[in-house]
Amino acid sequence: MIKSMSKGELSQLKESLLRQYDSYKARGLTLDMSRGKPCKEQLDISEELLSAIKSNNDCFDSNGMDCRNYGILDGIPEAKKLFADLMEVSPEEVIIGGNSSLNMMYDTIARAMLFGVDGVSEPWDKQGKITFICPVPGYDRHFSVCESLGINMITVPLNADGPDMDMVEKLVAEDESIKGMWNIPKYSNPTGITYSDEVVRRLAALKPKAKDFRIFWDNAYIIHDLNETGDKLLNILEEAKKYGNEDMIYIFMSTSKVSFPGAGVAAMASSAKNVAYIKKKMFAQTIGPDKLNQLRHVRYYKTAEGVRKYMKKHSAIIKPRFDVVLEALSKELGDTGVAEWFNPNGGYFVSVNVENGCAKRVVALLKDAGVAMTGAGATFPYGNDPDDRNIRIAPTYPPIEELRIAMELFCICAKLAAVEKYLEA
Amino acid sequence: MIKSMSKGELSQLKESLLRQYDSYKARGLTLDMSRGKPCKEQLDISEELLSAIKSNNDCFDSNGMDCRNYGILDGIPEAKKLFADLMEVSPEEVIIGGNSSLNMMYDTIARAMLFGVDGVSEPWDKQGKITFICPVPGYDRHFSVCESLGINMITVPLNADGPDMDMVEKLVAEDESIKGMWNIPKYSNPTGITYSDEVVRRLAALKPKAKDFRIFWDNAYIIHDLNETGDKLLNILEEAKKYGNEDMIYIFMSTSKVSFPGAGVAAMASSAKNVAYIKKKMFAQTIGPDKLNQLRHVRYYKTAEGVRKYMKKHSAIIKPRFDVVLEALSKELGDTGVAEWFNPNGGYFVSVNVENGCAKRVVALLKDAGVAMTGAGATFPYGNDPDDRNIRIAPTYPPIEELRIAMELFCICAKLAAVEKYLEA
Repeated sequence: MIKSMSKGELSQLKESLLRQYDSYKARGLTLDMSRGKPCKEQLDISEELLSAIKSNNDCFDSNGMDCRNYGILDGIPEAKKLFADLMEVSPEEVIIGGNSSLNMMYDTIARAMLFGVDGVSEPWDKQGKITFICPVPGYDRHFSVCESLGINMITVPLNADGPDMDMVEKLVAEDESIKGMWNIPKYSNPTGITYSDEVVRRLAALKPKAKDFRIFWDNAYIIHDLNETGDKLLNILEEAKKYGNEDMIYIFMSTSKVSFPGAGVAAMASSAKNVAYIKKKMFAQTIGPDKLNQLRHVRYYKTAEGVRKYMKKHSAIIKPRFDVVLEALSKELGDTGVAEWFNPNGGYFVSVNVENGCAKRVVALLKDAGVAMTGAGATFPYGNDPDDRNIRIAPTYPPIEELRIAMELFCICAKLAAVEKYLEA
Repeated sequence: MIKSMSKGELSQLKESLLRQYDSYKARGLTLDMSRGKPCKEQLDISEELLSAIKSNNDCFDSNGMDCRNYGILDGIPEAKKLFADLMEVSPEEVIIGGNSSLNMMYDTIARAMLFGVDGVSEPWDKQGKITFICPVPGYDRHFSVCESLGINMITVPLNADGPDMDMVEKLVAEDESIKGMWNIPKYSNPTGITYSDEVVRRLAALKPKAKDFRIFWDNAYIIHDLNETGDKLLNILEEAKKYGNEDMIYIFMSTSKVSFPGAGVAAMASSAKNVAYIKKKMFAQTIGPDKLNQLRHVRYYKTAEGVRKYMKKHSAIIKPRFDVVLEALSKELGDTGVAEWFNPNGGYFVSVNVENGCAKRVVALLKDAGVAMTGAGATFPYGNDPDDRNIRIAPTYPPIEELRIAMELFCICAKLAAVEKYLEA
């Protein structure tokens, strides 16, 4: 425990850490742990997906529909089946989108702003100030959607088993302006935790004051296990049906981190009633997403089981990278008391809480030494981490040797910032 | 001129037409002239586009960006160049979308509803009733966008040289609620006319009362010539710059009828200022459209000239179909006085005005005999053709022999409905 050191010991440690820091800085590094993107080796896995449709005769779906031509708003049957199996819902509850699940989430909210959620309730845009619940730390692009659309954000702590449900239940029961809640229920971005069965059940059973309250269930890491035995997430749509709450649920996923982030397939699931309403509104919006890319994915992966097999190839590539990060944290910060983190069983991130008030300093120190991190605060609405402590580490993209060096430096910076703080206290 | 016949002559003609009609009806036809879709032979042209990207090494754009991965909101550089050349604008004025230009139009309007057109003016959704000018006959999906978003539509006649500009100038000068105007300026859907230089200049020079008035320039048939010498359309963005009106212009196009309707690439163009604003709003909306499909298209077509070469293959396939339609109209209806139409030099449709009050009857007669047409009225807002006279013929999709039979029957029905009307008068 560094905190319990005397001022003299702290000064000595600071000297030593500064020497180490300077020696790394002198190397003129340019390393990047900021981006939750797959590395080249992961993208190379799916080479044969590129040419999964080669000839004119390959272009027909199971109904004989020519996927090159116009037609079909909500996805070809085999794509709906594949994504239904992955999301554990029925094909009638699925809408296939383009390549971006973020786009489907944005459109779902924009639709609610313009028309209301069901064609019955008032458009959100006409209800004055509306609010989303944001478990924190969370995903910056969720917060950007709310910020862009002028939606107020209220934070609740994301614990090891999910959001603080006492707070969530109280908020939605009391405040009719609360219309939505963001969730990344499995291998959450950035903390890597998975919602417990109890949390999912309590969410599914919510009794919101606003009848047009919606749960946004961004299941971005639904099959993104790092280890042989992945976390199990309860099926929220099934649970919600037990309470007549199925219209409250929007589920999203994509193959961005399965096939290609720049050319995958996204999908959403909801109650049959919501799906019918969304399709009606979608008719005015688009001629429908790229069907050949849907067919390409189905031909390549064939089944949900087929997709899961490919995920093992991904985890074989990225697991060693996570190990480098977690081993460095454990070895260098394990008994220092200056940081805490969660060992995730999947997903794309390691979330580290450094000493309160030190996250910005740590990220700045790293930047000065040539290591790019996700900005401190990015995991909170408006980029504002009230404790200035959370830093998101993205292990997947950098080469493993770069990651090792970056993590050595990260641990030095985490200690150095803490020591600086203790010395000032 | 059938109209000048005596009642006796009309009765005789009716008898004869009914006999002909019944003989076609007895054949139990199932023919379809309703859909403006490319036929299978057209889709087969682009077989090699399917596998234009085969290997992992093929996936990098001209800047070395891995198109499989995240990044780039507005299109890879070579796609922006290609579409800029096609639209005769600069790459900085281009945003590449997904596969649907309708989706880009909808999003542009939805963005204006939610945020205003430029981040300065009031959101359209907060300005009470707003209105679009709709030249008629026009494209039903344009009208559906307005109807879905609750935007009022006011029609102006589409003449042989474009919309009635006296009316348009007067409307936008006087009515601040008029925020937009739909245009298909080249080979208009459905009439096939191209706006004259004077009409384009007058549009570019408009002095709208509403500072947030916008021209939606759906250049869907920008390179879709049927004959060797295509129509020339003046560049509206260039013209608008002469009047400081460049922010008033949104141009759209896609490869839906170049490569594949179900898996093409869409693009829009506008002033650099508008493009910057749209990109800012797009950041919250999406991680960006499919870059591999952009790359696939650029690798396959290479240049704008390359695209134009492929368009000759399309016209070689569909020109004979247009000829069947136009020859039947000319031969069977040419001197009857019961119909008028325009011989288009490109595009996807032939628009026929039958006798006033007869379009629904003609479409119904055809339907009863097994020939599906676009619904009468579909080319007007809310499906309401006040003269009940316009029928859209889509020649591209049906096999040529089917088209021949369907057109024989069409002409019989056009005459029959007119005779019925004259007899009742």
